[in-house]
Amino acid sequence: MKFLNHFLLGVVLFSCTCFNALSGNVDTQVADTVSKYPQPMPMKPQMSEYWEPQPAVVTAGNAANSAPSDAIVLFDGKDLSKWKKPNGSPAEWNVHDGIVTIDKSKGDIQTKDEYKDFQLHIEWSIPVNITGTSQARGNSGVYLQNLYEVQILDTYNNETYVNGAAGSLYKQTPPLVNPIRKPGEWNSYDIIFTAPTFTKDGQYRTPPTVTVLFNGVLVQNHTIIKGTTEYIGFPAIPNRDKGPILLQSHGDASPPISFRNIWIREL
Amino acid sequence: MKFLNHFLLGVVLFSCTCFNALSGNVDTQVADTVSKYPQPMPMKPQMSEYWEPQPAVVTAGNAANSAPSDAIVLFDGKDLSKWKKPNGSPAEWNVHDGIVTIDKSKGDIQTKDEYKDFQLHIEWSIPVNITGTSQARGNSGVYLQNLYEVQILDTYNNETYVNGAAGSLYKQTPPLVNPIRKPGEWNSYDIIFTAPTFTKDGQYRTPPTVTVLFNGVLVQNHTIIKGTTEYIGFPAIPNRDKGPILLQSHGDASPPISFRNIWIREL
Amino acid sequence: MKFLNHFLLGVVLFSCTCFNALSGNVDTQVADTVSKYPQPMPMKPQMSEYWEPQPAVVTAGNAANSAPSDAIVLFDGKDLSKWKKPNGSPAEWNVHDGIVTIDKSKGDIQTKDEYKDFQLHIEWSIPVNITGTSQARGNSGVYLQNLYEVQILDTYNNETYVNGAAGSLYKQTPPLVNPIRKPGEWNSYDIIFTAPTFTKDGQYRTPPTVTVLFNGVLVQNHTIIKGTTEYIGFPAIPNRDKGPILLQSHGDASPPISFRNIWIREL
Amino acid sequence: MKFLNHFLLGVVLFSCTCFNALSGNVDTQVADTVSKYPQPMPMKPQMSEYWEPQPAVVTAGNAANSAPSDAIVLFDGKDLSKWKKPNGSPAEWNVHDGIVTIDKSKGDIQTKDEYKDFQLHIEWSIPVNITGTSQARGNSGVYLQNLYEVQILDTYNNETYVNGAAGSLYKQTPPLVNPIRKPGEWNSYDIIFTAPTFTKDGQYRTPPTVTVLFNGVLVQNHTIIKGTTEYIGFPAIPNRDKGPILLQSHGDASPPISFRNIWIREL
Repeated sequence: MKFLNHFLLGVVLFSCTCFNALSGNVDTQVADTVSKYPQPMPMKPQMSEYWEPQPAVVTAGNAANSAPSDAIVLFDGKDLSKWKKPNGSPAEWNVHDGIVTIDKSKGDIQTKDEYKDFQLHIEWSIPVNITGTSQARGNSGVYLQNLYEVQILDTYNNETYVNGAAGSLYKQTPPLVNPIRKPGEWNSYDIIFTAPTFTKDGQYRTPPTVTVLFNGVLVQNHTIIKGTTEYIGFPAIPNRDKGPILLQSHGDASPPISFRNIWIREL
Repeated sequence: MKFLNHFLLGVVLFSCTCFNALSGNVDTQVADTVSKYPQPMPMKPQMSEYWEPQPAVVTAGNAANSAPSDAIVLFDGKDLSKWKKPNGSPAEWNVHDGIVTIDKSKGDIQTKDEYKDFQLHIEWSIPVNITGTSQARGNSGVYLQNLYEVQILDTYNNETYVNGAAGSLYKQTPPLVNPIRKPGEWNSYDIIFTAPTFTKDGQYRTPPTVTVLFNGVLVQNHTIIKGTTEYIGFPAIPNRDKGPILLQSHGDASPPISFRNIWIREL
Repeated sequence: MKFLNHFLLGVVLFSCTCFNALSGNVDTQVADTVSKYPQPMPMKPQMSEYWEPQPAVVTAGNAANSAPSDAIVLFDGKDLSKWKKPNGSPAEWNVHDGIVTIDKSKGDIQTKDEYKDFQLHIEWSIPVNITGTSQARGNSGVYLQNLYEVQILDTYNNETYVNGAAGSLYKQTPPLVNPIRKPGEWNSYDIIFTAPTFTKDGQYRTPPTVTVLFNGVLVQNHTIIKGTTEYIGFPAIPNRDKGPILLQSHGDASPPISFRNIWIREL
Repeated sequence: MKFLNHFLLGVVLFSCTCFNALSGNVDTQVADTVSKYPQPMPMKPQMSEYWEPQPAVVTAGNAANSAPSDAIVLFDGKDLSKWKKPNGSPAEWNVHDGIVTIDKSKGDIQTKDEYKDFQLHIEWSIPVNITGTSQARGNSGVYLQNLYEVQILDTYNNETYVNGAAGSLYKQTPPLVNPIRKPGEWNSYDIIFTAPTFTKDGQYRTPPTVTVLFNGVLVQNHTIIKGTTEYIGFPAIPNRDKGPILLQSHGDASPPISFRNIWIREL
């Protein structure tokens, strides 16, 4: 401690609630116990009130699910100007009617910018003419930092391995439940991602974590990510601070899915 | 390890991606490096695919913000049958027009049931005739387990101490931003709460945490809760596994606020 | 908040250190900045001083590495009365000269009691006549809760797969460094283990973690345990609160290793 | 997922242990249950064995508590060349007989270098002629990054506020137990510190944590540090990546304490 001028407060007549700040139980304390110990000095409310910095004012999205005012709108229904192919050339999926539909002949697309910690909102819809079973039915995915896939799949009356279901952290953690809507309707993911930090030897010092609300229902609850979401084998631990959001064009034969209303907020 | 029959795989001609499972970097590896060490044996996709247990199917809420099918509806616009006063007598706030408005003469209300880990959705609206400044303007709060308050307050063009703003963990952690809507409109909180565990001496073994989306915007990001949200003094650490949701009837002189569409999902 | 009687403290002449309690930087603040906001009311030292409960007095071990006075001594050099075979029959390793040497014909031994969270001290020695290479050289292991193995192996001038080295969390996390002593000398592990908690669906709600000091050198730093330390395949997640400490009798052909001075403190 | 060529493995005759990798219980499974689902394909041990990078070889300290070979020796009994006063001028405490004794007229001393994550070993001794009570008896402290104090105090038959006892994180977290030795003997702290990371607004993104072994007994178990260890008021959150180790020269009237054998390992 910094200074010595400590004085004993003397024996008091009851064990006050301050005691509980360390280990007490507010329910079971008895008010008239005599303690032989000094009690913490009483405080005032204004001792724990901090006025600055004031939080930034943000205009929230409205009922039409528009983006908050501080979000980066990644797709607003008009163009793919925020996206590119992994090789750097322009993204070429089909923008129409305020949505974008995968063109399977054109491969994946990813954001031009890279992100560390973020809140991501994305909506996706399985076409009504969907075909196939298990993983071969509306398969796509949102790759966080191009490393960690939150799976997209038509799991409406379609079973697959649970760590590959819609809302799973692919090949790692199944969704807590399956709240998918039927083909033709729109599903939403609200994803909160915290990037890892690394030891000097390349292990996780603090692991990446992800929380996912799927149509407003919690399916990943601050899930500890073990590493990359590999199709084959164990997760890898690439030492990366930032990365793009990648949307997958999957090679299955089922009709392509669509996306709309994509935005991200850097945290 | 359990058995000895380990055999060396021999020197291979490239550092495969499996190496990265421990500490590699998928971006920088060079495919034709000769390693003097054995390499992990290749795997197949089906080795990391688990089919059971299948996640429970849940019908998500619709555009009118109805509850998911597996939620406990705490208030559906009709009655307060899931609520009581803290003293156990019937809750007496004003149910009308599908909403419930605080009756400040009747005090707080809390759920009859208690919860451990949960996802909670609640909507609240500041009346258009709101008056007062700082904390005396539409003040209420959602108490998680009756211990940890997520503050409700009209902070639309109303500054207060930031750790007492709407979306704050009261007297602990300010909201990341302020996405409140103006009086007369409806605000929503989506709250994910994880209960603490305790050491045998009553300290936190694992602390409680809370994530809050305020009108869909992240304002508390897996915040570590330090203890009870005290008006005066330091947080306390009551040793409690479960507790009710409590809605506060605050003693300020401003017109009462209203709630609607309250549901909870036990995790 | 609980009460309304909040009063503004008025504009003050400097940004006090209290401001920093939320987001300030104690190094860069300027003492004579005028803030338009109220400042937290000053406090006194005695407001943050708690006198009870006083921590239990423990007599620490001495230079001969005797156990702390509150430890459960699992092996004190005299007998294996705290141990049994996994099938429940008496443990039959060779107690001699104050140490216990593995009898490979007798299999593993485990504690009769089970533990949740704990600090474990154990010492082990590789015989000077050790033979073999890689995993077939002094192989044994300490299984925490009979589920999670901290590997024992002679890695003195003996390379093996790094996630199977002495001090590794077997098949999961390599040791940060290799501080092993040469055969004939005594090595120590000081292990701090925190048991997991589980979701209702059997996933980790909070994962198990382990810290290991190997001859006083940190080799596992609050490592997140992914599940059981399987010889083959991915970690499993058994839903178990407590479990015994198990010491492995490994089937390799190398001479048996010895243990001494084993104690555990429940946390 | 990346590729489609998934094939069903067919109904198998038992629920294999691989199932448990997600949510099973290795103890309770029944071997002859027929599952309607595919089972994960069997694996081989060599699929989870990684040989590189090999951990660095470190020579551990010996019975005389010498430092590990990869440690930075901060005080080896000879001089204070690794230390300075906070104002930058040379450290002037009394080096004698292989130890260093505080000179209270000379103030605190701190390391010239700064550290982020580290393992720190330090030994300290209360003089046999110690006087005073409560905080005025052998008071000093080890400040991690010059921000977070692990308290040093003679608490041998000397009660004080528990969050100010030897082994406490000062004014935050009491020690789990009190394993102090009597005046004239040497005490040791083995401290493992993980530095925080910060949000862009200066809050903790991941909090600092500390583990302390006090004479080999765990007294702080991966304790979440709330901020600076203030003598008065709430913890502050300075945004700092690195900082020195500071040893406190406390202003009380009791005879000065001594230190020896101080080393640090950067993690």
